[in-house]
Amino acid sequence: MNTKLDSNRRRFLVTSAGGAAAVGLGSLAPAALAQGKPLPPVAAWKDADRLIVHSASGVETKRGAFGDGVITDNEVLFLRNNIAAPSASIVDNADAWRVEVDGVTSPRAITVGELKTMGLETVAMVLQCSGNGRGFFGHKASGSQWKVGAAGCSFWTGVPVKAVVDALGGVRQGMRYMTGTGGETIPAGIDPKSVMVERSVPWNAMDRAILAWELNGDALPLAHGGPLRLVIPGYYGVNNIKYIKRLAFTVDETQAKIQTSGYRVRGIGVKGQPNQPSMWDMNLKSFVTGPAGDGPVRAGLVQVNGVAFSGESAVKAVEVSLDGGSTWRPANFAGPILGPYAWRRFVLPIRLSAGNYAITSRAIAYDGSVQPENRVENERGYSHNGWRDHTVKVAVA
Amino acid sequence: MNTKLDSNRRRFLVTSAGGAAAVGLGSLAPAALAQGKPLPPVAAWKDADRLIVHSASGVETKRGAFGDGVITDNEVLFLRNNIAAPSASIVDNADAWRVEVDGVTSPRAITVGELKTMGLETVAMVLQCSGNGRGFFGHKASGSQWKVGAAGCSFWTGVPVKAVVDALGGVRQGMRYMTGTGGETIPAGIDPKSVMVERSVPWNAMDRAILAWELNGDALPLAHGGPLRLVIPGYYGVNNIKYIKRLAFTVDETQAKIQTSGYRVRGIGVKGQPNQPSMWDMNLKSFVTGPAGDGPVRAGLVQVNGVAFSGESAVKAVEVSLDGGSTWRPANFAGPILGPYAWRRFVLPIRLSAGNYAITSRAIAYDGSVQPENRVENERGYSHNGWRDHTVKVAVA
Repeated sequence: MNTKLDSNRRRFLVTSAGGAAAVGLGSLAPAALAQGKPLPPVAAWKDADRLIVHSASGVETKRGAFGDGVITDNEVLFLRNNIAAPSASIVDNADAWRVEVDGVTSPRAITVGELKTMGLETVAMVLQCSGNGRGFFGHKASGSQWKVGAAGCSFWTGVPVKAVVDALGGVRQGMRYMTGTGGETIPAGIDPKSVMVERSVPWNAMDRAILAWELNGDALPLAHGGPLRLVIPGYYGVNNIKYIKRLAFTVDETQAKIQTSGYRVRGIGVKGQPNQPSMWDMNLKSFVTGPAGDGPVRAGLVQVNGVAFSGESAVKAVEVSLDGGSTWRPANFAGPILGPYAWRRFVLPIRLSAGNYAITSRAIAYDGSVQPENRVENERGYSHNGWRDHTVKVAVA
Repeated sequence: MNTKLDSNRRRFLVTSAGGAAAVGLGSLAPAALAQGKPLPPVAAWKDADRLIVHSASGVETKRGAFGDGVITDNEVLFLRNNIAAPSASIVDNADAWRVEVDGVTSPRAITVGELKTMGLETVAMVLQCSGNGRGFFGHKASGSQWKVGAAGCSFWTGVPVKAVVDALGGVRQGMRYMTGTGGETIPAGIDPKSVMVERSVPWNAMDRAILAWELNGDALPLAHGGPLRLVIPGYYGVNNIKYIKRLAFTVDETQAKIQTSGYRVRGIGVKGQPNQPSMWDMNLKSFVTGPAGDGPVRAGLVQVNGVAFSGESAVKAVEVSLDGGSTWRPANFAGPILGPYAWRRFVLPIRLSAGNYAITSRAIAYDGSVQPENRVENERGYSHNGWRDHTVKVAVA
């Protein structure tokens, strides 16, 4: 949220320059891009000062802009679109949006208005792009060069998928996947499968999934998938289908390219194939957000802090290193536990004398697993949770 | 958060009309007020469509604008100022703001920058104006005629007061109150005590108090007390001192009028006196937010929902009545527990046929207390938690 009057003015001007009608991915003028990449029109309401704009389809939260609390404000939450968002008109009459539910005993289309009568749940969860940390890989992996900020922890409110499925008589026998289809407009003249946003996840992920219409107390913005998004706590961002128009329980995975060869973990130089691991559940990760390495730090008492999260077994403890991983100290947690899919804020108060520090963190889960030192090399630069690359270099004077 | 381009434009125009320099309480032109009361300049960034503007110092969240989740977004959180906010320049260099800490072994002034090294905590809490519900009283109690929306649940992040006090050697012997002083500018030529915002609470409230610089993941806006606010979970809003410049442990309560005769509960027609109960901790309360009574409801399945909270013993259960309190049904809770000072979202799915309904709720606390039916009549219309007045009349067709 941006409270400064002059910032409001600035954003107004940016919006005017960008043009409300030009919402496609290629809508940013090269001149504007050269001047530091303005926010894409769909996200013109975000707080530019706290964000890194990679492209019109990729906006990252700065490491030092997460604040000291436990949730990520909508105005700084990262943005990533595979293809352009639909017209903003779909959020103006959000309750009329329809999602087709299939692969259940009594399949039918349901409006958001009706979904709002079928159950209510709020979950705090980390939404994270599969490629968060790609910018640390050494082989120039294709895609946005995210560092730490393609992730955020927010409250998502909607109806449990389970409640909807129960109301439609349950999942049909033999279904193995839950497949969501996004409401993006497919450009004419190309094979829809080559660009459509359709993802399949193991069907029992429905036990934790929500069809969400609200983000942190606000109507879900178009930029984040409004009027309705499928959210699957613990799963990477791509599985959380925006503007969902179809939710189907299926025998097989979708044949969309984004599933068959996209978002597959494989060695460098290897092509994507359906038999490679899919980017489903997230791994154990933490990173320091303060100090953020974006300015000098004064000698004396410093509060090293950051966030820790996991897709599966919840975070039990976090350790911090000031010397690039040679020695480790236990950190404390600050703030309430928001559930297993949220992140936790860790903090280590420490007296630092002048010098150079390499500050990083590693998370430990309840199942005993420990955040690893190094990334696992892979073609697309996915799922980076190695603590070494996430180290912040801090000069204390 | 307002994601619509035209709304951004509208807000820009409002800001221009209001004038960035005119931040005093009397800055709204009568003509503008007649046209539906624009947001005061200090809160020009809020979402006007979801708010009721009572005056330049009082802005309420609409009953139907709280959303279905568990927290209140900054852009819809209510606003109440006793005197005009200081210059916006104080939040531009937030870390330089100083608070004097007194009544401790080693009293001294501390900057926000230093406070950020002294400890870290986040608390989810309901902030509520003492007069929330005043609009339901029958005797035209003086003050903003709030209905339900002078309350909101948010995350406040800062340093525990206890950590600061410990660092200064502890509270001096014999102190009975924690007294906070706001940083507002006192107009010249009047007795400061007559207008200054200085409040005393029992000293042990420090065990839960925070000196906060962040609200829901954003730097604390000026409108809500930035750069630094004393927050005391469970206590009415007035005790949560904005732009705090002095925090003192004292033998006696402050002699400021806002303490000696203001915010005292007394019978109608009785003048305020120091021996009457002070507006400190909040009572047990709930209200329905959906349906909000702001439009027709279609017959069929309806999800009655709302919020329940308390200053002391946490909420254990909520019951809903559809017939103005003749019969009651248990509601469920939706979403995570955010701690004892947060509110909980309750929900009752129910099939409603055509007709008129009087929908209300009552909360039950862990200590066995039950939200009462009726308000306690009092001169200033404080602490209304009677469920009868909070009833929503809903026409189902």
